[in-house]
Amino acid sequence: MADHRQKALEFIQDHKNQSLEKMKELISIPSVSTDPERAGDIKEAAEWLRKELESLGMTRVEIHPTPRHPIVYAENLSAGKDRPTVLIYGHYDVQPEDPIEDWNTDPFTPTEKGENLFARGATDMKGQIIATFSAIDAIHQTGQLPVNVKFLIEGEEEIGGSYLETFIKDNTELLACDFFLNPDTGMQAPDLPTITYALRGIAYFELRVQGPKHDMHSGTFGGAIHNPAQVMTDLLSGLHDKKGRVTLKGFYDRVIPLGEEEREELSKLPIKEEFYLQQGGVKALWGEEGYTPVERTGARPTLEINGLYSGFIEEGQKTVLPAYAMAKVSCRLVADQDPVEVYEQFKAYLEENAPETVTWELTQMSKDFPSLSDRKSKWIEAYVKAAEAAWGKRPIFKREGGSVPVVVHVQQSLGVDSVNIGFGLPSDNMHGPNEKIHLPTFYKGIEALVHFFFNL
Amino acid sequence: MADHRQKALEFIQDHKNQSLEKMKELISIPSVSTDPERAGDIKEAAEWLRKELESLGMTRVEIHPTPRHPIVYAENLSAGKDRPTVLIYGHYDVQPEDPIEDWNTDPFTPTEKGENLFARGATDMKGQIIATFSAIDAIHQTGQLPVNVKFLIEGEEEIGGSYLETFIKDNTELLACDFFLNPDTGMQAPDLPTITYALRGIAYFELRVQGPKHDMHSGTFGGAIHNPAQVMTDLLSGLHDKKGRVTLKGFYDRVIPLGEEEREELSKLPIKEEFYLQQGGVKALWGEEGYTPVERTGARPTLEINGLYSGFIEEGQKTVLPAYAMAKVSCRLVADQDPVEVYEQFKAYLEENAPETVTWELTQMSKDFPSLSDRKSKWIEAYVKAAEAAWGKRPIFKREGGSVPVVVHVQQSLGVDSVNIGFGLPSDNMHGPNEKIHLPTFYKGIEALVHFFFNL
Repeated sequence: MADHRQKALEFIQDHKNQSLEKMKELISIPSVSTDPERAGDIKEAAEWLRKELESLGMTRVEIHPTPRHPIVYAENLSAGKDRPTVLIYGHYDVQPEDPIEDWNTDPFTPTEKGENLFARGATDMKGQIIATFSAIDAIHQTGQLPVNVKFLIEGEEEIGGSYLETFIKDNTELLACDFFLNPDTGMQAPDLPTITYALRGIAYFELRVQGPKHDMHSGTFGGAIHNPAQVMTDLLSGLHDKKGRVTLKGFYDRVIPLGEEEREELSKLPIKEEFYLQQGGVKALWGEEGYTPVERTGARPTLEINGLYSGFIEEGQKTVLPAYAMAKVSCRLVADQDPVEVYEQFKAYLEENAPETVTWELTQMSKDFPSLSDRKSKWIEAYVKAAEAAWGKRPIFKREGGSVPVVVHVQQSLGVDSVNIGFGLPSDNMHGPNEKIHLPTFYKGIEALVHFFFNL
Repeated sequence: MADHRQKALEFIQDHKNQSLEKMKELISIPSVSTDPERAGDIKEAAEWLRKELESLGMTRVEIHPTPRHPIVYAENLSAGKDRPTVLIYGHYDVQPEDPIEDWNTDPFTPTEKGENLFARGATDMKGQIIATFSAIDAIHQTGQLPVNVKFLIEGEEEIGGSYLETFIKDNTELLACDFFLNPDTGMQAPDLPTITYALRGIAYFELRVQGPKHDMHSGTFGGAIHNPAQVMTDLLSGLHDKKGRVTLKGFYDRVIPLGEEEREELSKLPIKEEFYLQQGGVKALWGEEGYTPVERTGARPTLEINGLYSGFIEEGQKTVLPAYAMAKVSCRLVADQDPVEVYEQFKAYLEENAPETVTWELTQMSKDFPSLSDRKSKWIEAYVKAAEAAWGKRPIFKREGGSVPVVVHVQQSLGVDSVNIGFGLPSDNMHGPNEKIHLPTFYKGIEALVHFFFNL
């Protein structure tokens, strides 16, 4: 098996270009899951994966339709019952590319510049999918798989409220496994292999405040009819206090406080104020009083305005008193917060604070629980050794500010723990314009995965 | 002359359909002055006016180019030096038609329904232009004009900061007149002829708050990078206090307080709370404590959010921490407020209240002074009698919440007073979707104008 490991490692060295080309093929399909007009691209991406999985030696490959976008399942259980079974996760959908004018290259034409490949979905997470495919391919092409492998690749991770949760609940036998490999988290730096042991949950809302029944003249009616944009700013402004804390009643009740030991561990992460200042290009940071930026973004819940609209926003001016205002607001949650409870808290806030001059509607879109994983599981130990082999460094442990709802669903339905890793970097502009993946880290990632599968 | 008046009145009765058709022709040209793509339509509207003015017997008709949209000038001074000269104002541009989805009919296809004609620009103010044209036409076709007439029709009233101000300053001889007739205000109800003696000024701003240099992932960076949409809501929310007063320092310093006599006069206007509730379709009104809705909208300054944008506002969800937020904000001003002083006050507010986590930029678009007219001038007396002849009722006097900057420019440069009238109704949805004009009031208006020109 040592020999096989060596051959697989050599194979990936010799086939880097093939990995890169495969990634480019997948990225070129603009599979934006929130855009109804791109349903065809979503379907094409699923078909592309089916063909690829077949060529990786998967013995069973299926596309499962859902009421929205299909789930791709594949397996190769030839390692046998005495070998562990890993369920590998992926999502083939990507975020919308807007604001399109801020991209330096076409979002769906992968473009190499120096060590990076730029495109929507490069790091989140088509590159990560291809890394797992390339590792499995290398092992398969040079011998027998040392573990049983199952793939579960969905097409609506970026939508929120996906059908994957139901699919997992309904297919616990099909998906039965010893642990869950989730390559949708990242690394802190190109030389810092990282294991993520906590993920934030999310509660995503759309709030609509309706004022007059139609847009009105701001000169004739301004001062007598309450402006819904003004009401919206009053309501949103009231959601934080002066200490940067969220004002929703009960919001912090279920938050597990950070212990001194964990705070000390997190303080060792090489992510300091300077990193955030640089990434944002801002002069000063902001956040909840009494916590470091790493704690604020990973171990504490937050509330953000993701979108805001009212009235006339084109070039020029229009003296309109808008009929309504709309905001997209999301809360990142930490263990043990409950996204549906947060909806109730938001609703109670609006009931208490919205004036009778307007009507409002609060819609919950995402409602995904936060997750905390066992830092000492044998699966995590296998990855620690794999990362040491690939990068010559012991990985660091971190909490992730983003959300990977599938980890919670798998924990709840399949009763297994997760290994959350990935080869994206904080500077990859995930979800923003000019998203990219760092190619040397991507190739190292394939190497680490080969070691990992042999270590199990 | 009594005979001529009678003939002219008969002429308008016999040519109602011609007036309607002319109005439809002008309205069908989508002369949206803020839209650079419609510069051709603006030009077409100016040409249309030139031809019409020539057919009305104007002896001199000129299109004066400006750096943006042309000004149409025309005159017929055949009444002679012992007769008064009236300068008649108009603007042939219209507001943008959005939100287009809220229109029941095409905004630029004039559509009759019952007593109303629906289209963008019907009431503001192409219908009013045609009313003056039809009155002059009727007098001209049936005899000699009893007054010298000059027309001044601009194409950028809806833009703000128009070149008309410069044109008036540079052409005081050409525009010299005894008084200014401005038909761009309205009537309180179909049976209530109205003279407007005060117009609010306007200071229109665009505020941009810049946070991170590009959109960021709200999970990874939310809680450490200050969200510019949140900063924007804090800043905008702070612009009013709990009594509905604007918080800008010095904002009320120059406001002429309402005297008891004027308050009593205004209280006689048939516009009560019920009117605003009905027009807005809202359950409750809002505004500055201690003032009635009529006072709030006419005699007190206000601050409104006209537009608001940040981040992701399409269907679906995107977990973005936006790079910037933008707001369009305008203040309606009353005598003797100064729109440039208000800009300084807004800037001082931002300097004091914007956090160092963001940068901001405040641009002033419109800066038009408020205006107050002499309620007892002989020109106004002539219109009082004309309105009595047309409607059988003495007109009421009111303050207008909207702004007609040209009245201020004419007062300042030509040193003459104004007669502010018009045949639009508060229910005409000026600036909103489904703008309309009430046809019976439009026809009565032509009749009143004929009387007015003979009364002078």
